[in-house]
Order: sequence, then structure tokens, then C-alpha cells
Amino acid sequence: MSASGDDDGVNPRLREERAGATVRPRALGTLIYGGEQSFGRMLEIQELMQCDPVFDTSDRPFLNHTQRYLRSAQKMGHFHTKMANMGLTEREFKWAYAAIDEVLPTDVHMAMVIPALEFQTSAEQRARWLPLAKSFKILCAYVQTELGHGSNVRGLETTATYDVNAQQWDIHSPTLTSTKWWPGGLGKTATHALLMARVIVNGKDHGISPFFLQIRDMGTHMPLPGIAIGDIGPKLGFNSTDNGFMRFHRVRVPRDAMLMGVAEVTPEGDFRRIPGGDKLAYGAMLDVRANLVIKASISLARALTIAIRFSAVRRQGFAGEGTATADERPVLDYPTQQRGLFPLLAYAYALHFTGERMRVDYEAYLHTLDQGALPALHATSAGLKALVTQTVADGIETARKLCGGHGYSHASGLPDASANYLALPTLEGTQQVLEPQMARFLLRGLAAARRGGGAPPAGCEYLASERQLLAGGASGAALDLLDPAVQLRLFQRRALVAVLALQVAVAELTAAGVDAAEALGRRAAEAGRAARAHCQLHLLQHFAAAVQALQAQASAGPCAAVINEREAAVLRDLCSLFALSTIEADLGQFRDQDTISSQDARQVLHLISDLCASIRPEAVALVDAFHFSDKYLGSAIGRFDGNIYPALMEWALREPLNASEVAESLPHIKLLVGTHPGARL
Amino acid sequence: MSASGDDDGVNPRLREERAGATVRPRALGTLIYGGEQSFGRMLEIQELMQCDPVFDTSDRPFLNHTQRYLRSAQKMGHFHTKMANMGLTEREFKWAYAAIDEVLPTDVHMAMVIPALEFQTSAEQRARWLPLAKSFKILCAYVQTELGHGSNVRGLETTATYDVNAQQWDIHSPTLTSTKWWPGGLGKTATHALLMARVIVNGKDHGISPFFLQIRDMGTHMPLPGIAIGDIGPKLGFNSTDNGFMRFHRVRVPRDAMLMGVAEVTPEGDFRRIPGGDKLAYGAMLDVRANLVIKASISLARALTIAIRFSAVRRQGFAGEGTATADERPVLDYPTQQRGLFPLLAYAYALHFTGERMRVDYEAYLHTLDQGALPALHATSAGLKALVTQTVADGIETARKLCGGHGYSHASGLPDASANYLALPTLEGTQQVLEPQMARFLLRGLAAARRGGGAPPAGCEYLASERQLLAGGASGAALDLLDPAVQLRLFQRRALVAVLALQVAVAELTAAGVDAAEALGRRAAEAGRAARAHCQLHLLQHFAAAVQALQAQASAGPCAAVINEREAAVLRDLCSLFALSTIEADLGQFRDQDTISSQDARQVLHLISDLCASIRPEAVALVDAFHFSDKYLGSAIGRFDGNIYPALMEWALREPLNASEVAESLPHIKLLVGTHPGARL
Ligand SMILES: Cc1cc2nc3c(=O)[nH]c(=O)nc-3n(C[C@H](O)[C@H](O)[C@H](O)COP(=O)(O)OP(=O)(O)OC[C@H]3O[C@@H](n4cnc5c(N)ncnc54)[C@H](O)[C@@H]3O)c2cc1C
Ligand SMILES: Cc1cc2nc3c(=O)[nH]c(=O)nc-3n(C[C@H](O)[C@H](O)[C@H](O)COP(=O)(O)OP(=O)(O)OC[C@H]3O[C@@H](n4cnc5c(N)ncnc54)[C@H](O)[C@@H]3O)c2cc1C
Repeated sequence: MSASGDDDGVNPRLREERAGATVRPRALGTLIYGGEQSFGRMLEIQELMQCDPVFDTSDRPFLNHTQRYLRSAQKMGHFHTKMANMGLTEREFKWAYAAIDEVLPTDVHMAMVIPALEFQTSAEQRARWLPLAKSFKILCAYVQTELGHGSNVRGLETTATYDVNAQQWDIHSPTLTSTKWWPGGLGKTATHALLMARVIVNGKDHGISPFFLQIRDMGTHMPLPGIAIGDIGPKLGFNSTDNGFMRFHRVRVPRDAMLMGVAEVTPEGDFRRIPGGDKLAYGAMLDVRANLVIKASISLARALTIAIRFSAVRRQGFAGEGTATADERPVLDYPTQQRGLFPLLAYAYALHFTGERMRVDYEAYLHTLDQGALPALHATSAGLKALVTQTVADGIETARKLCGGHGYSHASGLPDASANYLALPTLEGTQQVLEPQMARFLLRGLAAARRGGGAPPAGCEYLASERQLLAGGASGAALDLLDPAVQLRLFQRRALVAVLALQVAVAELTAAGVDAAEALGRRAAEAGRAARAHCQLHLLQHFAAAVQALQAQASAGPCAAVINEREAAVLRDLCSLFALSTIEADLGQFRDQDTISSQDARQVLHLISDLCASIRPEAVALVDAFHFSDKYLGSAIGRFDGNIYPALMEWALREPLNASEVAESLPHIKLLVGTHPGARL
Repeated sequence: MSASGDDDGVNPRLREERAGATVRPRALGTLIYGGEQSFGRMLEIQELMQCDPVFDTSDRPFLNHTQRYLRSAQKMGHFHTKMANMGLTEREFKWAYAAIDEVLPTDVHMAMVIPALEFQTSAEQRARWLPLAKSFKILCAYVQTELGHGSNVRGLETTATYDVNAQQWDIHSPTLTSTKWWPGGLGKTATHALLMARVIVNGKDHGISPFFLQIRDMGTHMPLPGIAIGDIGPKLGFNSTDNGFMRFHRVRVPRDAMLMGVAEVTPEGDFRRIPGGDKLAYGAMLDVRANLVIKASISLARALTIAIRFSAVRRQGFAGEGTATADERPVLDYPTQQRGLFPLLAYAYALHFTGERMRVDYEAYLHTLDQGALPALHATSAGLKALVTQTVADGIETARKLCGGHGYSHASGLPDASANYLALPTLEGTQQVLEPQMARFLLRGLAAARRGGGAPPAGCEYLASERQLLAGGASGAALDLLDPAVQLRLFQRRALVAVLALQVAVAELTAAGVDAAEALGRRAAEAGRAARAHCQLHLLQHFAAAVQALQAQASAGPCAAVINEREAAVLRDLCSLFALSTIEADLGQFRDQDTISSQDARQVLHLISDLCASIRPEAVALVDAFHFSDKYLGSAIGRFDGNIYPALMEWALREPLNASEVAESLPHIKLLVGTHPGARL
């Protein structure tokens, strides 16, 4: 921590930044990664994985989809073999996977198939399949989406027709559009499939159920007879995995290929759904979504680590009239750069605390299996999925743009980070499909609150405070916008106003005879607003509560606390910045029904500037806190040591075109310019 | 135009859409491409280029940067040879280049070098260099940016030191960071460079001036002695061009390598800038920026053509309880889809009319060389560059997301379109650097208007109407938000309020002793708002004026008009949608100082829905109007005939991984699953 000039190889600008910060990256890292021990272990595992040359990522920008898949298949084989030998806990396994930073062809096998085999099978099936899946003796794709249908699962066309005589299912793709399309790992890797198909028994359509079946020969790896499989080709991102297609021609599988935890069919062909059978799967979704929020925090923080370190090192523009490089200021000094980056930094922290809280909620649910809490948790997690993936995708792109030209080069690591993350807003449900789920829940919540039917679920208390909140609109007096209680009230009132506006808009239509679902569809704009407002309130609540707890611990003394009072105060600033920049971004809605006054709205701008200025000296330390290794960042401009220019040059020299002074383009050039040896202009 | 079911190979859904539209794509195409004759010629040239197999683009998604550059070099050689034989007009040449849809290594040669050689040279230099450049006998990069400096041109480090004795310049890169970095076509293609370097004469630093010099041998194409050149490696987009680096070690060039149109040096070493020498170059910038706005319109319309056609064909979700595919509605019916796509469609049209107007302004300027109009045109064009490139980049990405999973595949053509366009917000100046230019102009304009110094420049009249506009804030009565005059007044008042807020914010600081530039820097948020507000007003003005003129022509009768009254009315709806969706997006600012009331703000939402509903049946025709060929779109899901599913399947089969049933990943798979011939689960 010295700025004394002794040469540790770190760029002096970053040394200065680190010396000037008051928060301690180690302390914050300990907080982020769940305590001293687990933090240490995480770093250990990260190092262990990243020093393994098979997991090297530096060749990626030079490869096309075909090559990236093959490299990633190599990593897959090596990774799971290594894991089998290392005997890690489940959490450690997750760190190890995160550390190699590759969407392996087994990604969906781990994330979706294993939970499905766990929660949607009969005990017998579970015992038979799960160990094989968990030991990667079989590789299984999650096969739902078809060429013609994704969002609308009810519209899937693949059929599983029960043949009572043979006691078999006949799996068939009746149309081109029923071809399965997109499943990760399906194209060239998977030996098995967890398949969603339309169940037909005795000519009766029972809707969609999951099946588990082998799709390739375990010897030759050839597709089994009647099954056509392939890779769907290059994508924006996710090129390390073989998203695939699959078409069936009358393929026979045994009766119990159907997952019997959610539905059953007797040998005689009596089909029935098991009441409550999908509850566990439904619960498991909470875990998936909590992980999604944590990962969103990591993805955003990673882009910000690059952009903030770069902005601290990058000098561009003179303070005065000088032209000496030493007179130039780091671009991090520019208010525009700060206003671009720091609200996103606040957002990354907000996501971290919210995600951790969602994990706790999920564990509490697992303990009690209290179904009562489920609808609220579930609806909010859907709304958050829509909001968070979109915001983080935009945020990564903003961070990239704020690196100027260098952010446009793959040398920065940002194009790849952005391209991969951009799958997330689409995967597992688009915003347009998820927001109405949240909105429906809010309308039900409002109706229940008005009926006075018991306490509203946690996080929805505002729905029961209509009178007080509406009375508390903007008055003449200026608000103390830095007061956490004031911020919370503004978010609550704004959410309430949005839910009420939605309710009125929908009621108008239903009163005119439109059915409820259709009415909500037509009022999707209002529904989206309400969903966003609720979810942003949710983020603020969890962020603010975490900070408050940390402040209390810190002021209770060093023994009780991971971070000190100063650090807690900086987190408090970040929380305020989160609140105020959200208000600024959605000001129109906060001004609706005068939740905030015109005067206070202007004040918001100034306070954001002040908060940015006070976070400025801590910015590098606040991203250092996430402890991403240079290997993980894969960025010439985001390196810990800040020596970005030699790194950029070194990186460029890897480009194959530089292997010779004159490239194979020569004949095309000569076609135009001709050959004039020795000619000089 | 029949929906009678006769099989023209077009997907019935698109046939239906086209039959249901009232606007005629041909008439709108004639309008967009400047009259019957030029429209026809454009189509001819487009076809001529695209049927040439060398210009095939369908292999692109499968290539990495190295391969794409080599393919594009081939296209470059072929393109310029073909052009030399075809003898096109300048405008036709532009169409031909647009038609091949590739950023050639000669892109910057055409866009920036030729104008520089035209406007910044002495007559003698012009005569010597320009014919070579125009005939592509030399290939020249525009070499300004360095590893360490881009935005801050004053900070460039490359030196050109005059040696009086030899009457030569000594070009040198004194540091690693002075290495030239980014210039398009520099890496492996260019034979020459238009180089920005710091002029040093007799030890005195005269700032940055342009030089023209040879960098590779005209025989061997090897870099000349003392010059190191290379390619900077793969990028987010623009991979068809060889953005390069270049470093000089004491390279000698003759005295008149310096461009003598803007500055001169005598043989004895007297250096002087030529007064007014940069005026022409400054004017030429207007042309560049007008083209940028037109191209932005094309880029956005292209993405929308894909997304809107796809949305019309894509069925997803049942209207009622059914599950038959025929019952499913096209996603274009969903209000969310409409609210996502149609405001962007309105934006594409707004950009078209604004760009055309900027061209007219530029030509008027060329006629009169009236310097008076220049500052306003120039500042607005800088602000528009910042606003438009950002909005269009976001818009393309929105359109891509609205295609769900298929939008994430390169088969859609959208990832590539998006990645290439994303260079634009960064290239030639970032938003953070351009907006202050616009803001400074607005502050000067406001000060002039308050002094009463003559009529304000065109487009800035609102600055001189402080009193009237401020008096016209929201009153109790609801506004007619569809009235063009009302819309214009709202935009003017909002712009005025933003400029006033900026003025006050800056004045507070300058009163406290902060210097003006620094004050503007600190109030960048306010400056950005004012710049945006002004530019959005600018777009509305031009869009509305064009529509008004078209309405007048149309009502004067068919002889006078390209489009009919119905078409003009649809454009009027688009213009209203542009206005209202801008208000919605920036509602906080329109609510500032009550430019619009809370009630009217809510009305905006409803009116947007209504406008979307009325545009709905015209949407496909409105994108058909741009007449992009299938080859140009390069999209399996955006094809004219709407047969997206067979096209997706065909496209996927091109993936090299599908050349064999079992890929080279087999050993890695077997490492995990082992070999169990005949095993069945
Ligand atoms: C990288 C990647 C990996 C994937 N991996 C897998 C996998 O492993 N297994 C698998 O089965 N699938 C996978 N998918 C598919 C993915 O789940 C779907 O793409 C996603 O659910 C979106 O569905 P869609 O593609 O059908 O989009 P569509 O629904 O066709 O989307 C088109 C547009 O219509 C809108 N829309 C659709 N329905 C409605 C509605 N009811 N109301 C309003 N708007 C609507 C959408 O919001 C969108 O704007 C993957 C996709 C991607 C991109
Ligand atoms: C695809 C591509 C092609 C290119 N082609 C060429 C070419 O042919 N020839 C050539 O010479 N160059 C070329 N360039 C370089 C390009 O012109 C620069 O990248 C661009 O001007 C941005 O400058 P920068 O990279 O230095 O960004 P920086 O200025 O370093 O940007 C970093 C951040 O600092 C901010 N910032 C910088 N200065 C200020 C300020 N004064 N106030 C507030 N914020 C500030 C920026 O807005 C940005 O957020 C190309 C770049 C790209 C991406």
C-alpha cells in the first residue's frame, strides 16, 4: 500500500488509486465471498484451475464457433475428470466451474438436467439415473425448445404416443417446426436427452411432460436410429457450446422413460398428473434464480473491474493548456465517466446482497417447505430475472463503451463478456413473457390487501399501505434524499402508484368485457412498469437492509464485524447512489402522482454528482474487492498491474495475420496498385 | 397482392400482412430513394452487385477475423476493379458499395482520406495525389489515433521534426504509447498513410498537422525501413478490415509530405497555419455527418425489416385455450412487440428525413459557402452523431432481442449487424466528447438570444422565445397530443428548460471562480440533457416538416405527389409515434418545470398504444418499403418470402461441425462416458 515509488511493477496510477482508497479490498472480499475461510478457499480453487494450461482462455478471440466448441470439449473432459479427483464440496465445485469461465457443453447438464432428475423423477428412476448424471457417465441435454416454439411451451409439437401393447412410447417429430432447436450440448456432445414432449395416450392429448432417453450409441457415439442430430451453427455468444437440433422419426422408448415424479402412466395407459408433483421443481427454480442474481453481480463487477481500472490508467485530456502527458487526467476524473460507471458499481453490489438474501430465503424454504411464501418469492424472482438480466446486459455494454476504442477490441475482454451475457435476457424466458407473471401476482396482492386478507407477503407490505403512502406525495418541503427511510418510501410509493395504475387500466378493459389475461396483455406497458417498480424496490430493500446490518455490526466493534465503519459508510453511499440513479433513470414514473417533486428531482442530479465524487477515490478498491484474477478477466486493459499498453501490443502480436509482414491478401492488393518496385511518391 | 392462396412461395402470414396493408412499398421506396429513376437505378445496381459470387456474404458467420479480412481483401480487389469498368456516378458508386455490405480495407480511404486530400492540400499536391487515390493505385489509411491517445488529439505524441538542412521531415514514434493504433486498412493493406503528427520546427512545437507518406514498398509490399506495421487483432465487429498499428523510427520524408492546404512550411523552416485553411474540411464534415444519419436510418431499418417480418411469421402463444398452431397469434400482435418495434420504425423514418435535409443543407452551404450557418449546422451535427449512433445501436439490439432465441443466432443476421454498428458510437468521437460541443453552442446561442443579437440560427428559434415558451407550461386543460404544433412546442419548451438548467448550473460554478470549460465538464449531465433535447427537437422538426410537405403534395393530387394521402397520413402517425415515444422515454425531463402535466403524461402511454395499433397493419409494408434484398439482409428469419424454418435448417447444415455425425470432440467425450457398445439405459 505504498505510493513511495518502489517498483512493484504496478502502474503508478493504480498504485496511487490504491494508496488513496480508504476501503480494504480484502475486507470487502471476505464479505462478498462469505467469510475468511471460504474466501481463502475460493481464491485457492480459482488459482488451481487457472494455472492449468488446458483451461487457458487467451486463444478464444481468435477462434470461430467450430474451433471454440472443440477447445471447450477438451476443457469439459479435463474439468470433470479433474473434479472427480479433487472431491470438492458443491459450493467449491461451483467456484471451480466459475473459475474456468467457459460455458461447457455440460453447462445445462449441470444447471438444469440434474435438478430435473432430482425433483421430477420417481425414487426408482432417481436411483438409476442420477448417479450416472452426477458422475458424467452420461451427458444429457435439456431439450425443450423447438424450431417453431420456445416461449409458448403449450405449443410444443413433438409427440410421445403411448403404445399399450408394446408398453412403449413412440417419440416423433411430426413437422419441420417440431424439430428440437437450441438445447446446449445437444449438437455433438450429449448422449442423452431430457425431452419435453406432448403426451398422447389413447388418442387423448395430455399436454407436455418430460422424458429421459438415450440419443447416441454409447460405443460409436452415432445418433441412434430414427434420430437426426446436429449443431445449429455460430451464435452471438455461447460458441463454446454446441447448441443443437434433433428430429425424431418414430423412436421407441420404454414406458418409464417418462419422468414419473410429476406424472404417471400405468402399463395399461392410465395417465395422471401427480398432485403437487411439481412443487419441488418449482422450489428448485428459486435456487436457479438466486444463482442468476449472484452471477449477474459477478458479470457486471467483472466488466466494471476492467472499465474502472482502465479509466484510472487511461489519461485523456489536459486539465489546463498544457500538452505534457503528465498533465493529463485519468478519464476516471471526468464526471461523465463516473456517472456512467459508478451507478453500475452500486448495482453490482445491490445484486450481490439481493442474491445472497435470495439464497437464504431458498434455504429457509427448504427447511420449512412452507408453500405459503412460495408465490411471492417465485413471482419476484421472475420479475427480477427480466429486470436484472436486461440491466446487466446493458450495463456491461455501457462499461465497454466507456473504454473508448480499446473497449471495441477483443483485447479488452469486454466484447466476449458482453456477447455471452446477452444470452441471459433471452434464455429461460424473455422479459415480455416474465413480466406479466410478476404483474399478475401484484394485482392479486393488491386485491388481497384491499380485502384485508391477512398480512401481505414479505416485500409487498406497500400494497397494504395505500392510504398512508398516497397521502405522502411531494409537498413543498424538500426531502432528505440521502435518508434511507425516505428512499425506501419513494420506491414504495412509486411501486404502489404503478400497481394502482395497472389495476385501473386492466379494470377498464375487463369492465368492457375483455377477459383478464387479454386485458393484462393489452396493458403490458403498465404491467411492465409495475413489475419493474416492484423489483427495484426489492433490490433497494435488500441492499439497504444488508448495509444497515453491516453498519450496526461495524459500530459494535471490530470483533463482530468483517468490515469497519468507514467501509460500511461507503457501502451506504453506494446504496444511496443505487437509489438515486434509479430515480433519475425512471424519473417520469417517480414524478407520476408527484411521488417526487420537480425541485427534488433536480436535486437528485446534484446528489448523484456528489455521491460519485465521494466514491471516486474508492472506485478501484471497490472493484479490487471482487478479486478477479487477470486470467479470469482476460483483459489487456483491466489487468491488476495496470500495464495496459505493453499488454495491448503483446496481444496484437498474437494475431495470425502478423505471422508474416505481407499477408495472403497481397494478390488482391496488387490487382489494384500494380507492382512498381522502388516507386516513391 | 392476393391472399387468394395461389402459391407464390410466400409464407401465407406475410401474404396476409401485405394484402392487409394500405400503404404501397413501391411508392414509399420511390420516396426514400429519391424518385422513380434513381430508385430503379439503385435496385439495378444492388442486384448487379449481389449476384456477383465474389460478394457473397453467407460465409461470414463461420469465419474468424483472419479469414474475414482475407475474404474482404478479395472483395476489395474485385470491387474497385469492377467499379473502374462500370463508370458509375458518385451516388451510384455509394449504392454499389452499400450493396456489398462489407467494411472493406479501403473504407477509410474512401470516406476520410479522399476528402482530406481534396480539402487540406495545396493545388499542386492535390493534382499529384488525388488521382492516384481516386483510382486506387495507392491505398491509404487515415492514421490519427495512437495507443495512448484518441479523443485528445492535442495529446498525440508522434513527431514530425523539420530538418532545415535536408529539407526533410523526420517522423518518429518516441514512446510505446505513440504507436499508431486502430487505423482501418493499415494493418496489412495500405501502401500509404495520411498521418497526424506533431510538428516540431526549430525546437518549437506547432501542434498537430497532417502528412501524406508512403509506408510500404510498391514492389514487395514490405514495410519501408524504419516502419513497423501490423494488425491489431480481432474486434467486436469490423473484422473485415485490418485495423492496424504503426511505429516509426526516424523516417525521412520530403518537406511537402505535409499537407499544405491547412499549414505551410517554407524550405527555410517558417511554419504557419493558413487562415481559414480548415474551413473547407470543416464543411466537408457536414457531408460526412449527413451520410452518417442516412446510414443510421438504413442500419436501423434493416434490423427492423428482419424483426418485423419475423414477428409477423412467428406464431407464439394462443389467443384462447386452444393448442392448434393455426390458433396461435403472430407475436407482432403483442403490444409489447409493437411498443418495442414501432417507435424504432418511426425513428428510422425520422432519421431518413433528417439526413436528407442535412444533405440539402450541405449542398446549400457548398453553393453559398455561407460561413454564418456553419456553427449551428456543425454543432447540431456533432450532437446528432452522439445521439443517433447511440440510439440506433440500442435500437438494433432491441430488435435483435425481440426475435427471441433466433435473434441470438447468426442465422438471423442480427448479431453481425449489431456488432458492426456498435463501432459507430465510438468511432470519430464518443458521446462524452461530442455532447459538450453541442452544449457550448447552445449556451452561446442562449446568450446571443438574450442579448437580442439578431435572429437565432435555424432550428434554435426556441432559444429566443424564453418568455412565451416558459409561460406555456402545463395548465389544467388536457393537450391535444397528436397535434403537430403541440408536439413541437413541447419539444421546444423541454429543450429550452434543459438549456436554461444547464446555463444556471454552469453559471453557479463560474460565479464561484471555476473556469468555463471546467464548469461545463462538471455539469456534463446537464450538458448531455440539453444536447439530447436540442437534437431530438431537430429530428422532430425535420420529420414533421417533411411529412407536412408530403401531405400538402398528396392532397394537391396524384400528379404532384409520389405518395398518396393515405400514405402521408401513416407517415404522420409515425411522426406522432416518434414524438410521443421520445416523450415517454425522457418523461422526467418533459415533466421538469411542468412542460407536460402528470395527466397528459399518462395520456401519452395510451396514445402510443393507439398509434401502435393503427400502424400494426402497415408494419410489414413500411419495412418492405426500404427494399432490402434477401442477400443484403443475410437473414434466415428476415427473408422476403417469410419461409424462415426451412431457411434456418438449411443454414444450420452449413456449420462445419455437421460435416460428420461424430465430431473431433469424441475423445474428450469418451474420457468421461467411456465406451460401452450397445449399452442402453
Ligand atoms: C444461448 C441459448 C441457449 C439456449 N439453451 C436452451 C436449452 O438448453 N434447452 C432448451 O430447450 N432451450 C434453450 N434455448 C431456447 C430458449 O429457452 C428460448 O430461445 C427462449 O425461451 C425464448 O423463446 P423463443 O426463442 O421461442 O422466442 P419467441 O417467444 O419466439 O420470441 C420472439 C418474441 O416474441 C415475444 N413473445 C413470445 N411470446 C409472447 C407472449 N406470450 N407475450 C408477449 N410477447 C411474447 C418474445 O418476448 C420475443 O420478443 C436457448 C436459447 C439461447 C439463446
Ligand atoms: C472500429 C474502429 C475503427 C477506427 N478507425 C480509425 C481510423 O481509421 N483512424 C484513426 O486514426 N482512428 C480510428 N479509430 C480510433 C477512434 O477514432 C477512437 O477510438 C475514438 O476516437 C475514441 O477515442 P479513444 O479510443 O482514445 O477513447 P478514449 O478517449 O480513451 O475513451 C475512454 C473514455 O474516456 C472518455 N473521455 C475521453 N476524453 C474525454 C473528455 N475530454 N471528457 C469526458 N470524457 C472523455 C471517453 O468518452 C470514453 O468514455 C477507430 C476505432 C474503432 C473502434
